[in-house]
Amino acid sequence: MSSLWKALEGSRVLDLAQPMRKGMPQSPNHPPFRMALERRHGDMVRADGGSAANEIIVTGGHVGTHVDALAHVSQEGLLYGGQPAGEVMSHEGFSVMGIDGFEPYVGRCLLLDVAAVHGVATLPAGYEVTADDLERAAGDLEIRAGDAVLVGTGWSRLWESGDDFVGQRNGVPGPGADAGRWLAARRPRVVGGETIAFEHIAAGRGHATLPVHRIMLVESGINIVETMRLAELLDSGVREFLLVLNPLPIVGATGAPVRPLAVIA
Amino acid sequence: MSSLWKALEGSRVLDLAQPMRKGMPQSPNHPPFRMALERRHGDMVRADGGSAANEIIVTGGHVGTHVDALAHVSQEGLLYGGQPAGEVMSHEGFSVMGIDGFEPYVGRCLLLDVAAVHGVATLPAGYEVTADDLERAAGDLEIRAGDAVLVGTGWSRLWESGDDFVGQRNGVPGPGADAGRWLAARRPRVVGGETIAFEHIAAGRGHATLPVHRIMLVESGINIVETMRLAELLDSGVREFLLVLNPLPIVGATGAPVRPLAVIA
Amino acid sequence: MSSLWKALEGSRVLDLAQPMRKGMPQSPNHPPFRMALERRHGDMVRADGGSAANEIIVTGGHVGTHVDALAHVSQEGLLYGGQPAGEVMSHEGFSVMGIDGFEPYVGRCLLLDVAAVHGVATLPAGYEVTADDLERAAGDLEIRAGDAVLVGTGWSRLWESGDDFVGQRNGVPGPGADAGRWLAARRPRVVGGETIAFEHIAAGRGHATLPVHRIMLVESGINIVETMRLAELLDSGVREFLLVLNPLPIVGATGAPVRPLAVIA
Amino acid sequence: MSSLWKALEGSRVLDLAQPMRKGMPQSPNHPPFRMALERRHGDMVRADGGSAANEIIVTGGHVGTHVDALAHVSQEGLLYGGQPAGEVMSHEGFSVMGIDGFEPYVGRCLLLDVAAVHGVATLPAGYEVTADDLERAAGDLEIRAGDAVLVGTGWSRLWESGDDFVGQRNGVPGPGADAGRWLAARRPRVVGGETIAFEHIAAGRGHATLPVHRIMLVESGINIVETMRLAELLDSGVREFLLVLNPLPIVGATGAPVRPLAVIA
Repeated sequence: MSSLWKALEGSRVLDLAQPMRKGMPQSPNHPPFRMALERRHGDMVRADGGSAANEIIVTGGHVGTHVDALAHVSQEGLLYGGQPAGEVMSHEGFSVMGIDGFEPYVGRCLLLDVAAVHGVATLPAGYEVTADDLERAAGDLEIRAGDAVLVGTGWSRLWESGDDFVGQRNGVPGPGADAGRWLAARRPRVVGGETIAFEHIAAGRGHATLPVHRIMLVESGINIVETMRLAELLDSGVREFLLVLNPLPIVGATGAPVRPLAVIA
Repeated sequence: MSSLWKALEGSRVLDLAQPMRKGMPQSPNHPPFRMALERRHGDMVRADGGSAANEIIVTGGHVGTHVDALAHVSQEGLLYGGQPAGEVMSHEGFSVMGIDGFEPYVGRCLLLDVAAVHGVATLPAGYEVTADDLERAAGDLEIRAGDAVLVGTGWSRLWESGDDFVGQRNGVPGPGADAGRWLAARRPRVVGGETIAFEHIAAGRGHATLPVHRIMLVESGINIVETMRLAELLDSGVREFLLVLNPLPIVGATGAPVRPLAVIA
Repeated sequence: MSSLWKALEGSRVLDLAQPMRKGMPQSPNHPPFRMALERRHGDMVRADGGSAANEIIVTGGHVGTHVDALAHVSQEGLLYGGQPAGEVMSHEGFSVMGIDGFEPYVGRCLLLDVAAVHGVATLPAGYEVTADDLERAAGDLEIRAGDAVLVGTGWSRLWESGDDFVGQRNGVPGPGADAGRWLAARRPRVVGGETIAFEHIAAGRGHATLPVHRIMLVESGINIVETMRLAELLDSGVREFLLVLNPLPIVGATGAPVRPLAVIA
Repeated sequence: MSSLWKALEGSRVLDLAQPMRKGMPQSPNHPPFRMALERRHGDMVRADGGSAANEIIVTGGHVGTHVDALAHVSQEGLLYGGQPAGEVMSHEGFSVMGIDGFEPYVGRCLLLDVAAVHGVATLPAGYEVTADDLERAAGDLEIRAGDAVLVGTGWSRLWESGDDFVGQRNGVPGPGADAGRWLAARRPRVVGGETIAFEHIAAGRGHATLPVHRIMLVESGINIVETMRLAELLDSGVREFLLVLNPLPIVGATGAPVRPLAVIA
């Protein structure tokens, strides 16, 4: 282990997850996040004066920072690899391609800062990220098969803005189908970004179609990580780092919350 | 980053989380885990033939593999540092010492294999791990302040055994108060193990008192990680590795699920 | 029983509950209602060809048509009868004055149609119902101690309007403190109406103060039923009927959903 | 209304629901009931000294005293009337035959006390109620089409016994297929009883097949009410009364909790 300890000396760890609390921005399609204390200190005191508090949590698999499993999206009834969705879903969730089938990722990650390409901290609502944007953002960075690739829009800076972050009215910036294909062609293991859906959502459109989800999950077998908090990373100027992406192993779920970490050596 | 990539070449990543599913072993004190698909493919098909599935999840903060926040336990009404619990808990959870206050851990971890000390794969139900056991298990390993220290009992091998794993009847192996003090004296950042509670639970006793929780959380400010899946790590013989411990950042919660990873270089 | 059967011949039963579904109007203070099928037919088929479907439900005690328990509101820390709230609440809910302590009501009910007093089907958003309104609406109807008394505003006609029904922006019609005192003075067993809170909520005010809740629950020991669907009853012209009010007996809860019925002989 | 008030003078109302609380007996097939206070008094005090408490509730539609909707059970993929189940179920529940389609019942109810037929307060675990038992219990009582018919086993007396009430090991008393057909032939609107499933469950069998559910829900369009608290009614000797059965109108659900009332004139 000694070379690893040495390599990690002076490294920094950035937390790329948004905090989870009641009322945080999320898609109206998913169960609203709720945490309530159940037992509080003093409710039940043990003989020795000790007391424990706990909570109940209700959430969805696509709430807060999370990873989409391949089972999340189908096209014409088929999942990735042509698997008919109807054959693998039940009261126990998905028997294949659930989030428990996502091998935790600990590896190289590139951040393509499209906001910086346009000289802004945050891209405008409804801006469509293009393949050309990604080319320019990548610059000299070499994307290798199996890497993680994140697209920076600066949108995570709006987390506290609630409805604006969700973008039902004004849309959100994100990759169009063209940019999605550019990414998929590089065969990353996972892609993602700061918005609730890793898509370009035009003003007033909502999630009418999700071409990038189709391209990634159904056509290419590439997972997506969404609602990341990338602001600090974008500001740091770091574009290559070690990403740890380990969503909760919820058997059969179509996605799960995660607290991704960037390790910057 | 180049030295990091080099150090990680040939490294292995082990998943230390138990899979989360309905009916998995958990403490009866906490909300039972439940995941159900809400939308299935075909329920709502978009104009372009795409369809998305999702789920609803009910859980507790101490369900499955999880980290205890300092706010989890109080003694005589006081949390760590003498903070009166009653002043910091509300419908929004804990304003201090909640799991969102746990800085994700990426660092050195030692595994003290007490089962191996006794020449068994799994310690007997109700066995009390002693300070002497820990001394012998540590051997030449140097525990430094700020490390993570896990105690191996082999108990995670019983995960599929349901009631036996929970141990309401026969107890579970774990550190007694004596072993807890031995650990705390070494000032680790976090300690933990394979059982639901990181405690010695004698047969038929249940969670009548939780001395190790008091020693760690209340007296020492040391977090606890529980219900880990350590079997594969124990079998590997590896005793020092990089631990990634990043529980979900649920604001104000007394604990949160986590998918810990061991990186073995 | 024969006289009862005779009296009920030709009677009508009106359902006074709003339907419960995801996305229905409710107070943002309470957990959002959610129902999802868990098992669907075909997921698990028994040997004889039978299959059962079921669901998971998440809700609050004050969601949909519901009854407020006396424990719901305190004033200066005291519940009805001067009971200190802090002494009777725990992880098991309220040990006294919870909704399980509400004896199901089967008795006389009067409907005071304030909308009709003003010659409208629905009172304007933010209209404050006054004691004089109630006097005029009551007319010759004698209110007896122990009766149920409902105040008609027509607001249940807006159920499908979502945000307008909730009234965060424009307010909702309801009794002011003055009308509340007029009602309490008649010593009914229960009072209620069509809005989420049985209060006058002025435009833009929200639930800053809830004087009628204080008057009823804390000062008078009178329960409140809210979010009733009274439109059909108002249209019928019936002002006296048998009300059945039997909220779910959730032990220790501060309120519970109910499907009230009006029996009109 | 005057003849109704006169008929009700001196009437008694019995609550036929079991209290709902964490840990109460229920089928392991359904989401465990959980209620936790969310806000407690003092968490958020309004400017005028008022404070409100509330809760979060997780449950299933077949938990506690509840009514089965026709959509609950299918046979060879078909619901009542030959409706293919697959065509009417989605993320919004069932579009037909959900519990919201159950018209609240306020009408005549007969209690067939099979325990009394055998001279016991409670039938033995695993006892199969036969058509002959029902004949004898009915005696001179005339069952009319559209009535409610309850079968008394005394089993509700075991509510506090937890596992024994559930009967996974020793079974529960209830009607066999033969008794089910006897009941269905009389064309009641609803049938029910005290056990979790209105079935004969032999020792060690569990819910392997549910013939009475098939006969009632699928073949006859007759709803079932389960987990009723009939002990007091059985003890009273009353065999004919007015039943109020008004399950929560949860749109699309396969069942819903209810607090049934018996009005005895």
